Amino acid sequence: MQAVSAKNLLKAPGLLSQVYLRCFSNATFHKKDIVFEPTQNPKPLPKFDSSLKFGHCPSDHIFEADWNSVSGWQTPKISAYRAFAIDPLNSTLHYAIQCFEGLKAFYGVDKQIRLFRPERNMKRFRSSCNRIALPDFDENELLECLKEYVKVEKRWVPNVPDFSLYLRPTAISMTDALGVRQPDQSKVYIVSTPVGPYFPSGFKPIRLYAEKQFIRAFPGGYGQYKLGANYGPTIMVSREAEKKGFHQILWLTDNKITEIGASNIFFFLVNEQGEKELVTAPIDGLSLPGVVRDSVLTLAREMGEFKVSERYLKIEDFTQAIKEKRIIEAFGAGTAMTLAPVELIHYDDIDYKIPVDPVHQAGDLTRTLLKKIKDIQYGVTPHPWGVVVA
Amino acid sequence: MQAVSAKNLLKAPGLLSQVYLRCFSNATFHKKDIVFEPTQNPKPLPKFDSSLKFGHCPSDHIFEADWNSVSGWQTPKISAYRAFAIDPLNSTLHYAIQCFEGLKAFYGVDKQIRLFRPERNMKRFRSSCNRIALPDFDENELLECLKEYVKVEKRWVPNVPDFSLYLRPTAISMTDALGVRQPDQSKVYIVSTPVGPYFPSGFKPIRLYAEKQFIRAFPGGYGQYKLGANYGPTIMVSREAEKKGFHQILWLTDNKITEIGASNIFFFLVNEQGEKELVTAPIDGLSLPGVVRDSVLTLAREMGEFKVSERYLKIEDFTQAIKEKRIIEAFGAGTAMTLAPVELIHYDDIDYKIPVDPVHQAGDLTRTLLKKIKDIQYGVTPHPWGVVVA
Repeated sequence: MQAVSAKNLLKAPGLLSQVYLRCFSNATFHKKDIVFEPTQNPKPLPKFDSSLKFGHCPSDHIFEADWNSVSGWQTPKISAYRAFAIDPLNSTLHYAIQCFEGLKAFYGVDKQIRLFRPERNMKRFRSSCNRIALPDFDENELLECLKEYVKVEKRWVPNVPDFSLYLRPTAISMTDALGVRQPDQSKVYIVSTPVGPYFPSGFKPIRLYAEKQFIRAFPGGYGQYKLGANYGPTIMVSREAEKKGFHQILWLTDNKITEIGASNIFFFLVNEQGEKELVTAPIDGLSLPGVVRDSVLTLAREMGEFKVSERYLKIEDFTQAIKEKRIIEAFGAGTAMTLAPVELIHYDDIDYKIPVDPVHQAGDLTRTLLKKIKDIQYGVTPHPWGVVVA
Repeated sequence: MQAVSAKNLLKAPGLLSQVYLRCFSNATFHKKDIVFEPTQNPKPLPKFDSSLKFGHCPSDHIFEADWNSVSGWQTPKISAYRAFAIDPLNSTLHYAIQCFEGLKAFYGVDKQIRLFRPERNMKRFRSSCNRIALPDFDENELLECLKEYVKVEKRWVPNVPDFSLYLRPTAISMTDALGVRQPDQSKVYIVSTPVGPYFPSGFKPIRLYAEKQFIRAFPGGYGQYKLGANYGPTIMVSREAEKKGFHQILWLTDNKITEIGASNIFFFLVNEQGEKELVTAPIDGLSLPGVVRDSVLTLAREMGEFKVSERYLKIEDFTQAIKEKRIIEAFGAGTAMTLAPVELIHYDDIDYKIPVDPVHQAGDLTRTLLKKIKDIQYGVTPHPWGVVVA
């Protein structure tokens, strides 16, 4: 920041407000300032079994940090989970001024609780906030606040294989006025819900519907951010595919395969040069920079056994490869599913079947990579990606 | 609806749920069922002058109709304006499962209160709800409920020239669970805020920034619906243009001129065949089917003095026409602005100036069309578009 005299500072309103926020106010919230008000009514824990529905059972507490344009970030607090009072004019309800993150806390084999590469979620959350005109903050401070929150909710992290505590950092406008403009009040909050395995009774490969009419993301848009705007509009499209018996949408933009549902997708194939290659879409604005996606790429490169590429596969490249029996495996990758084998893609009235090992219901590479990731998450393999919290 | 025996009905779950909603439950809310609980604390009216800020001053009451997937629409009510209790897991806050409408109630020269073509807003609202996976309803019933609401809020309709009561029908998910899926609970509500003229002291032509990097809408997307998802992501883009001294963004998709800010745009020009022509973008998924837009098209066609076209003008068609002095006027069209003259479009580092009458600060056609519309809205010209409410 440029040095500025008090005299000049008063003359320059734009600069003044910047200096004001940095020097005289709170440009971020801080973990050290958290006020903790424990709940007076701790809930009984739900059963950590197949009856547990994703996202339905909030834990005891909520982390909140409020912001306003006059005095910046206010004192953060962790207190009893509760509903917000939201004005009917609130601009989150009208203009989708909102974004979120999703990550998990794992109870390890060594009884330690770990997050998986959480700094990546904090970084992405900050970039989403910037894109949707919500205020900036220090991503390291948010990570420290998140860790503090997980410590408070420790008993909610299931000590059951393949279970975890799903954490949901969220940012919303709290401006109570109509008008499509930058909010002058907002809130960052974190809530959590315990979650079971994506496949409660072992792998069940998924079937995808390659969507020709509707597009999820487009060049010049915001497909790389976790904005609410990227999710609601997909529901109607997914519902139609589900009615036809498919689990998720395979999203195409200009025939390029980008994502499935709300996850990234990988193809393990023999390419036209006869080489084994693991392929996923590049991060150029159409797909989310997934944490599991990046982990798959890194681990697969470390294996050193095949080519690993971030490049577009067009849907016709895929159908051609299927016809020539060059697709070895395909799998989705995301925080909710970790890795999910794909057994079929429906495109243009044709079902294209992807090989799946009939015994394990997933390909060898899918299983190998999933084991590597889970072993880090649950503390079986010591690794810098597993960040111990408590 | 097809006749169906009780036996077949039980065999067909899809059909069953349809029949259930239509016969045994509430497939829509009804005006006749409204429960009215008047506020005990009517607020003092704000000053209807230039101090009135758009969207900041809600009136006394709110209309609400709640829905759930088990018993359909519940009894609608009009009661004191109040904040909602919204759960932090609410899927409107995370996935932008929300849409809205905007229309105005006008205090006429004959002391009657009118809406302007409100059936068009109701129809568009319903189509937005369908697109964002919110439940269907009878659009005529919503219009009747809206009229009832305006009657209740009658004293909030300013008896001041160019002022009106802005009405905001809104639909949001009220499902308190994470997971990108169709809501099982939702709410339609209507609130209102009095609003002054877009140009408090006469026309002040607007300056537009033609955006090359960011896109508002795309083929296969949802640009034709009033979803929250179409608004939040534009704020960051608009803010950058405002910093450079422009009022609004001129949105392009594949170089085609689609909209400005959150309004439609018209060009009155001499086309390459030497004919006078009024041009606006077609409704093919990239632009909102605006009520003022349709009114301009209809009124201009009735004038019968020039060609009226719904066709794309590419940005290079515009710059070429400017160079050849073939642009006669340009104006934005929307509920908030009604019509707003455009004096400049900035594209690719060049300012393209559009003729504006120096005395009236707007072109002749802009002024003629605006007068026609306002005369209908304020009851000067009797017309079926002006729907008397009270």
